[in-house]
Amino acid sequence: MSGAGRIDSERGRDTLRAYDLIDKKKKGESLNREEIDFLIHGFVNGDVADYQMAAWAMAVCFQGMSMEEISNLTLSMAASGEMMDLSAIEGCKVDKHSTGGVGDKTTLVIGPIVASQGVKVAKMSGRGLGHTGGTLDKLESIPGFRTALSDREFTDIVNAVGICVAGQTKRLVPADQKLYALRDVTATVDNIPLIASSIMSKKLASGSDAILLDVKTGSGAFMKTQKEAEELAGIMVEIGRRAGKKMAALVTDMDVPLGMAVGNALEVREAIDTLKGHGPEDFTKVCLELAANMLVLAGKGSPEQCMALAKEAVASGKALDTFARMVKAQGGDETVVRDLSVLPAARYTLEVKAPVTGYVEHMDAQGCGAAAVLLGAGRDRKEDGIQPDAGIILCKKTGDSVKCGDTLAVLHTSCRERIQAAKDRLLACYRIGPVCPPVSPHIFSGIF
Amino acid sequence: MSGAGRIDSERGRDTLRAYDLIDKKKKGESLNREEIDFLIHGFVNGDVADYQMAAWAMAVCFQGMSMEEISNLTLSMAASGEMMDLSAIEGCKVDKHSTGGVGDKTTLVIGPIVASQGVKVAKMSGRGLGHTGGTLDKLESIPGFRTALSDREFTDIVNAVGICVAGQTKRLVPADQKLYALRDVTATVDNIPLIASSIMSKKLASGSDAILLDVKTGSGAFMKTQKEAEELAGIMVEIGRRAGKKMAALVTDMDVPLGMAVGNALEVREAIDTLKGHGPEDFTKVCLELAANMLVLAGKGSPEQCMALAKEAVASGKALDTFARMVKAQGGDETVVRDLSVLPAARYTLEVKAPVTGYVEHMDAQGCGAAAVLLGAGRDRKEDGIQPDAGIILCKKTGDSVKCGDTLAVLHTSCRERIQAAKDRLLACYRIGPVCPPVSPHIFSGIF
Repeated sequence: MSGAGRIDSERGRDTLRAYDLIDKKKKGESLNREEIDFLIHGFVNGDVADYQMAAWAMAVCFQGMSMEEISNLTLSMAASGEMMDLSAIEGCKVDKHSTGGVGDKTTLVIGPIVASQGVKVAKMSGRGLGHTGGTLDKLESIPGFRTALSDREFTDIVNAVGICVAGQTKRLVPADQKLYALRDVTATVDNIPLIASSIMSKKLASGSDAILLDVKTGSGAFMKTQKEAEELAGIMVEIGRRAGKKMAALVTDMDVPLGMAVGNALEVREAIDTLKGHGPEDFTKVCLELAANMLVLAGKGSPEQCMALAKEAVASGKALDTFARMVKAQGGDETVVRDLSVLPAARYTLEVKAPVTGYVEHMDAQGCGAAAVLLGAGRDRKEDGIQPDAGIILCKKTGDSVKCGDTLAVLHTSCRERIQAAKDRLLACYRIGPVCPPVSPHIFSGIF
Repeated sequence: MSGAGRIDSERGRDTLRAYDLIDKKKKGESLNREEIDFLIHGFVNGDVADYQMAAWAMAVCFQGMSMEEISNLTLSMAASGEMMDLSAIEGCKVDKHSTGGVGDKTTLVIGPIVASQGVKVAKMSGRGLGHTGGTLDKLESIPGFRTALSDREFTDIVNAVGICVAGQTKRLVPADQKLYALRDVTATVDNIPLIASSIMSKKLASGSDAILLDVKTGSGAFMKTQKEAEELAGIMVEIGRRAGKKMAALVTDMDVPLGMAVGNALEVREAIDTLKGHGPEDFTKVCLELAANMLVLAGKGSPEQCMALAKEAVASGKALDTFARMVKAQGGDETVVRDLSVLPAARYTLEVKAPVTGYVEHMDAQGCGAAAVLLGAGRDRKEDGIQPDAGIILCKKTGDSVKCGDTLAVLHTSCRERIQAAKDRLLACYRIGPVCPPVSPHIFSGIF
């Protein structure tokens, strides 16, 4: 056995070494700002090896991190690449982040609502992976829509329209990109402090003044319990506040897919319906609540005043108009808001029928996402392509009564051979029985 | 966040994936033989990445391993390269392994004792690293002595002389070499199951029929407490027995350097003195006990009979003669047993004096090893060279009474500029006070 580690550390007490920092975390001690910076900078520039970061991340999974440590990790990662400079955009810039779920197309609705009330939304979004969709994939199902924009284009569109939704540039937060890729192959993803710092490093680097967090919980979310979701929300709000941001968080229901549509073009269609005031009840409620809270963060008034502003934006058609102007500014066909047929449509559809009579007692929302992936709506791996027309329209959700033979859902795909497997997968997500389950409040709690 | 890991594992339940095995261990579950083999083979051939093994090793540090799992890990590592085939050597082959310490030159004495009583000792040894010495370095201080031998030379010498001590070939246990190197830089060395499987994989691959373990405990050992040492001994004995080996273990004292000499040529000198029957009392006692136990394992009689055989081997000069024949067979100058002046001698010596009067209440044995490294007797890194003539002769050890100005130790080196730092380092290892500490039994416990 080697005593080399020990003796090396005796020789150079003044020099930080990755070995000692891993050992410190393994023993349950906290790393200070300088130590965290050493690890993160070293990891990005190659001085700290992948296997050392993997050992550190696993030690974090067992020992946790102090709030100070999480905050320092987030700041260090945020500073690892370029930081967005939004100073060319006038007024308060409000961002929103969802931890991801199935059928979560809220950005498409609340961004235009908030922007139409004079608050700037300069939004960096991601692509779907696994059972969760991504806002970029959804918007790109609109013919011509571009999400790869230069900084200048991005800033100009936000100034002109009030909102722009673009892809994250490669230069933003390289430390998180690298650390996330490593966690993804070393079983160290499901740690709340690491999740919180990953999300918040991107939010801090994105440059908005205020951030609303939508932390999902339930069978379709990464946080399976409300307790975990609230812990994650609390840590993220604290990170943001320590960094000088205005912060709020809502913990919302993802035990059931949000709205009725799952899949990119299908979700754009539902978002437009919702901007016109006739969206599904659960989705509309969550959108208005999120939009109102973003307006509160931007200083537009009390929660009640802001809820009224959000409703007015929809009722007046201002939000839909803002959406259309955003689509046009980003190269897309803005006639989509009047004519949904410009969206791609799947060649095949299949109705999935209820095998028995009763109530939908429970749905496996993650399984619904997986069924949509089978139809071509999502990707298992980053490099996979997607089919914008593929997806599912749910006709029955948790709490609905169904008769044997009723249509539970309609599958959409242009890839016929996948449809049977998707049907089986989706049917397995429904538990139909005699008990009518309690109605979800859709929004569980908040940090304001 | 990615659900890719989860979805992949759903797609291929029949295929093992490193991710799932890391996650299983992280959750505290045990890996079965097939899973351990997948990890170890994959690690050696590059299919399992360094960062995945590092994450797994860190998870092991927190979750431990079941005895079955430790045993499987050891067998898998032992089988990762060539296994020594000692079938060309007649009779029972007995090996001994020490977990390492300061002044531990027992192999040089007990190997010849055991071999002189007709038991074959086919010994693979290592080099010193950090504060611990290595048997190969010690033997190579004898002019001409070769430890890099072909398999054929090794076998022939064991058959002709009864003992041969050679370096481990590169082909033996590559999985352990690679895993140890990884643990050494990821703060995952100090885990008893991983230590046990590392040691035992090499022992199993070395091909002996019986193995005696000398597990050191105290300030100069890796196991600082008797409890830890006994746990390690128990696990290693069980691994060996499950693999069909005859096993025994002694837990011995390394709170104080063993014998009076620390450093390669100085230790050879002390070993020869001991083979002549006038070695230091503690070292002689430990050597006879270890040798007797090796003879018991080889079926040479009861513990009492074997102790008598060990003593007889020294008293009759047979053990010294066997040592001389081994030295000659391995190319060394065998006149060393009659004329110690053939050993290299340091150009400079310095007496370290007691600064106060009292008893040596405590010694930091690891610090003594570090002082010897400063003098040139050891190496901090594998690639460093050593000076065979460098080291320390201790004149006072724990329990001895000293007067102010008495010589505590004599430093030997040919590198004058290092001597002052070594003196300061050594002095810091002595705690001299008014209390005479209890006498150590040298041997604490055993598993037979």
